Amino acid sequence: MSVVHVDAQGGAYPIHIAAGRLAQLADTVPADTSAIAIVTNPTVAALYLAPVQEALAAAGKPIHVIELPDGEAYKNWESLNLIFDALLGAHLDRKALIVALGGGVIGDMAGFAAACFMRGVRFVQVPTTLLAQVDSSVGGKTAINHPLGKNMVGAFYQPIAVEVDTEVLKTLPAREISAGLAEVIKYGMIYDLDFFDWCEEQVGPMRTLEQEQIVYAIRRSCEVKAEVVSQDERESGLRAILNFGHTFGHAIESGMGYGQWLHGEAVGCGMIMAAELSALVCGLPAQDVARIKALVQASGCPINPPQWPAERWLELMQVDKKNEGGQLRFVLLDKLGHAKVQAVAPDVVRQVLARFTTVEQE
Amino acid sequence: MSVVHVDAQGGAYPIHIAAGRLAQLADTVPADTSAIAIVTNPTVAALYLAPVQEALAAAGKPIHVIELPDGEAYKNWESLNLIFDALLGAHLDRKALIVALGGGVIGDMAGFAAACFMRGVRFVQVPTTLLAQVDSSVGGKTAINHPLGKNMVGAFYQPIAVEVDTEVLKTLPAREISAGLAEVIKYGMIYDLDFFDWCEEQVGPMRTLEQEQIVYAIRRSCEVKAEVVSQDERESGLRAILNFGHTFGHAIESGMGYGQWLHGEAVGCGMIMAAELSALVCGLPAQDVARIKALVQASGCPINPPQWPAERWLELMQVDKKNEGGQLRFVLLDKLGHAKVQAVAPDVVRQVLARFTTVEQE
Repeated sequence: MSVVHVDAQGGAYPIHIAAGRLAQLADTVPADTSAIAIVTNPTVAALYLAPVQEALAAAGKPIHVIELPDGEAYKNWESLNLIFDALLGAHLDRKALIVALGGGVIGDMAGFAAACFMRGVRFVQVPTTLLAQVDSSVGGKTAINHPLGKNMVGAFYQPIAVEVDTEVLKTLPAREISAGLAEVIKYGMIYDLDFFDWCEEQVGPMRTLEQEQIVYAIRRSCEVKAEVVSQDERESGLRAILNFGHTFGHAIESGMGYGQWLHGEAVGCGMIMAAELSALVCGLPAQDVARIKALVQASGCPINPPQWPAERWLELMQVDKKNEGGQLRFVLLDKLGHAKVQAVAPDVVRQVLARFTTVEQE
Repeated sequence: MSVVHVDAQGGAYPIHIAAGRLAQLADTVPADTSAIAIVTNPTVAALYLAPVQEALAAAGKPIHVIELPDGEAYKNWESLNLIFDALLGAHLDRKALIVALGGGVIGDMAGFAAACFMRGVRFVQVPTTLLAQVDSSVGGKTAINHPLGKNMVGAFYQPIAVEVDTEVLKTLPAREISAGLAEVIKYGMIYDLDFFDWCEEQVGPMRTLEQEQIVYAIRRSCEVKAEVVSQDERESGLRAILNFGHTFGHAIESGMGYGQWLHGEAVGCGMIMAAELSALVCGLPAQDVARIKALVQASGCPINPPQWPAERWLELMQVDKKNEGGQLRFVLLDKLGHAKVQAVAPDVVRQVLARFTTVEQE
């Protein structure tokens, strides 16, 4: 079993990565837990709720199940309230343990509910998508979406443990694996050139979920993210580099309607756009832009953004949380393996957008 | 000007207490603030929005005003969402400053919105009720109500400053002054016998808002609360003593429908009930129970609880956040000036409830 130790302001916790980890979940239940609430969705429940319930039963606590509708479109107030309704309806108290069983949407909502319920109860992340395993499992970000922007309402809140079972990836659609790989390769681009090189070589075995490669990819991703986050928990500086590709990516997600593109797909495509912007603004060499594009493509993510007028893009990016005082800010690569955050003038963004326009616009 | 320094886990901050403090609000605006959002309600806005806007204008930042419906009944998701809608509609960013101008409901909601908006922006409390000045201004508790319980969804989140203007108390209804005094005298009962003695002597001048007495009452209340909270920020132990009278009080508020009794009124009456329970469970002398009852009455709060069957009371108290594993827990006085938290069997609670029953029940 691989273990990554995360040292966060709100508390340290382990990430356990292994095939068959689901069966060990009772180990993560603190002795003074009064009851367990599993938050999941129908898709994941059909596959893994029974084994998870069986594993948790060994802890000898009452178990409640809260099923939320499936999909990013439901990452909202209404779903969050379903959790509170269920927790309060079952008379759960401050010693309750929330188990988030699902992808990033479930993790974000169950985590935010844990942060807010009675002003904070403990929770365990059991991420069932590759994206959630390499991204949302580290960093303590929880949130819901608002009609005017993604992840606009949330909290920094740490789980007491993250339990990654690589076996569950076998039931994921290939598209979801590719979306997860977009975040994996991102860590190489922004922070670790060696890992980027490794990803270029191993993208095939990663896509087919070879055990050795997928465990290493998850572990290294969590390590890089933990390293970056521990230096800047509240995203005032360094942490923002984790959002490489996300400014364009969020615009794609929100402009297309949440759930049309997978988050990782939007980020994959967004990284290509951010690489082009990096070339223009801080001289990232053309061959590195090409390597980034090739690796995104090899991971199976879309490489062509939606065809929108520049003003539509700019409007969508206006609500990004990185912005300050109305200025657009982007994560850029000054070289492959090193990122920084920088304000970029709208005209420069327009130039880059023009490179991705394949049809004439009025 | 009186200043209380609060040293909280989430950051230290000052409480400034003075007549005319509203006019100095621009001093509290950090230099890097991008915009200010004043959250208030129509009642407070009619009296103080104009002077507050004028004072804040000196900081030279854009000012937005968000008015929420007035009253505890509106301390809910819908009102909270009005804040998020307004903040996002105005394109506010992470450097926004939220100013909570109002009583406890406004402070709780604006504070919780500040805690969640983009996962946390700065906020300043400008409490305009006595209750808010002596209670919610210290301790970092923010929350909204849920149909199944009060303050069930919230966060621990600290303001960057609390600005108490004693002048604003002059426009408060006498009933609100009395409700605030319930919390003032509570600090004496649970923590500071000298202050209790002082309150017995000065309750008259406090009710008529004599400057010297009211400033001292606010300062000493904030000091006691800050001392208790600094020893136990997350309410695992000591901090719970601040809820003296609140288990019964919350039952009254929620059973009568939020907003029928003022929070302080319910707590005042609840303290008399908790004193009787203390007599029964830990031998608080009868003359101390009598002093408590007399001081609650002298402060102008109701002393007779609603006439409900015992089972109704027990059901209403079942959701209290202090409960663990289904057991009812109460704050009790083992002597005047010293409190502790203890589980109490339902039958013992029934005995105390019977003492407050003035009519026969079937």
